[in-house]
Amino acid sequence: MTRRNRSPLELFTAARDGDRAAVARLLSLVERGGDEAREIGRLGYPYTGGAYTIGLTGAPGSGKSTLTSATIGHLRGLELEVAVLAIDPSSPFTGGAILGDRVRMQDHATDPGVFIRSMATRGHLGGLSLATPEAVRLLDAIGRLWILVETVGVGQVEVEIAGKADTTVVVVNPGWGDSVQANKAGLMEIADVFVINKADRKGVDETRRDLEQMLDLSALDLGAWRPPIVPVVATEGTGVPTLWDTVVEHRAFIEASGELARRRAFRLRDELREIVAQRLERRARQITTGERWEALQEQVLARKLDPWGAADEMLRGIGG
Amino acid sequence: MTRRNRSPLELFTAARDGDRAAVARLLSLVERGGDEAREIGRLGYPYTGGAYTIGLTGAPGSGKSTLTSATIGHLRGLELEVAVLAIDPSSPFTGGAILGDRVRMQDHATDPGVFIRSMATRGHLGGLSLATPEAVRLLDAIGRLWILVETVGVGQVEVEIAGKADTTVVVVNPGWGDSVQANKAGLMEIADVFVINKADRKGVDETRRDLEQMLDLSALDLGAWRPPIVPVVATEGTGVPTLWDTVVEHRAFIEASGELARRRAFRLRDELREIVAQRLERRARQITTGERWEALQEQVLARKLDPWGAADEMLRGIGG
Repeated sequence: MTRRNRSPLELFTAARDGDRAAVARLLSLVERGGDEAREIGRLGYPYTGGAYTIGLTGAPGSGKSTLTSATIGHLRGLELEVAVLAIDPSSPFTGGAILGDRVRMQDHATDPGVFIRSMATRGHLGGLSLATPEAVRLLDAIGRLWILVETVGVGQVEVEIAGKADTTVVVVNPGWGDSVQANKAGLMEIADVFVINKADRKGVDETRRDLEQMLDLSALDLGAWRPPIVPVVATEGTGVPTLWDTVVEHRAFIEASGELARRRAFRLRDELREIVAQRLERRARQITTGERWEALQEQVLARKLDPWGAADEMLRGIGG
Repeated sequence: MTRRNRSPLELFTAARDGDRAAVARLLSLVERGGDEAREIGRLGYPYTGGAYTIGLTGAPGSGKSTLTSATIGHLRGLELEVAVLAIDPSSPFTGGAILGDRVRMQDHATDPGVFIRSMATRGHLGGLSLATPEAVRLLDAIGRLWILVETVGVGQVEVEIAGKADTTVVVVNPGWGDSVQANKAGLMEIADVFVINKADRKGVDETRRDLEQMLDLSALDLGAWRPPIVPVVATEGTGVPTLWDTVVEHRAFIEASGELARRRAFRLRDELREIVAQRLERRARQITTGERWEALQEQVLARKLDPWGAADEMLRGIGG
């Protein structure tokens, strides 16, 4: 391999042939956004559609990463390959917990059947909400069949990202109530499966009752699928096979019912709408800076031009 | 007068000649937004700049409308003409308090030196934040020299609108603390003058101390103008002359310091930016509906076109 920069096409071809460095490089480009990200998206898109994505979210400290790690182990035992995107909306400086979690995942770092990647926002214009589906599609396009998307935290963005998976797993702990109080409704809405992690601690039964009650009281149409609740002790791997079976069962259910196709179509439409909105926003920022903008403002201040007239002037030619 | 609809130009000319029905009709058109509102804005804009606007805001029940009414009385005693815009972001169905307040103002309804108008959002695309400055400009253009903008409630929008006046009066009551807890910082930021209304009740001294302390602790640069605190009993008119003198004093201060010109320029720039942003948003909504949008979505779902490519396609020709 030479030291010169490989083109997106060269990287993509290499990545499809199993070159892990090429995958990492492609993901960096996708994460950064911009023209190369676009080209990668264009190259990969026709090859997508084969992967199944599993979202995993829960409050900080609920043991998501340990659970992810245990799940990877289980999948490897089944001789399945897996890619993991760990979404971290904050900087790498968020501290010990996350670094520690990542270290735990390093158990799998040398396994060629496993690909793990942390993602942060960096410069991507669309933020994580646009960068994540692009990264997932890339992993899909290079032939990964199972993709775990783990989100750190339970803020609006994290819940949204996790909720855009094919199957979404929400991780809680015994006595979870207070830690996610603010976002319980959001979590209920996206959960296809609940995991009570750290189920060797007391309070599992109460937590299960709490969840069942919230499901009963929720205004959600649970339809034929009521989110199962799976107790797990991720540190020991206990319950992980059951969790996996539940995920596979959910997949079979939404595939058979047509729900999977509906979800994916809805997600794509949503993303498309967001891309258009963000491009127009960017355009608005560009319009409202610069010399021409300043000159028009001066005219408005001098009462030679009214504000709507000035806006017309700025938007002329861009159909606004 | 014939029954046919008068054109904006006819209405505007009549309004400048003192035809109150024409003013009311023009304000309705402005409130509604759309092409006629634009034309009115264009017609009036060169005539603006003579009026001075006073914003008046405070929690529901603080007695804003009674204070407005008392202020009108005081101004009429000084032989000044005045226009009042009462901004009501909710529907006319908000209930008794507001209707009652409006009724109190009817004392002045037959006085040709007073013009009172309630405004709601209705269909204006830009909402009250764009409709209000347009309405103020219209009143300015037809020669009103003093314009009171009273906002009902202390939500984000109301505070913003009141804060866009030349002088902003914030009305509190003895023991006000709890009623506006959520928005104290916002109110501190916009206040040029504080009124403690219902100052015949106990707790006036504590409220004054409370306000002074908040001013001391605030991160605001109070500069050479520290918002005076004026005790008033609006129902009896007590303190209203002092309030008016304080407003006039503030006006003289910001005129002399150049702050008035800065505020107005800032407001216009802000409004212009908002108009551009809203026009682009509207364009985004137009783009993401219709046959062409549906067709592109189908292509994306069929993986014939990637999402960014589809966005390019939609935005082609509008420079997005």
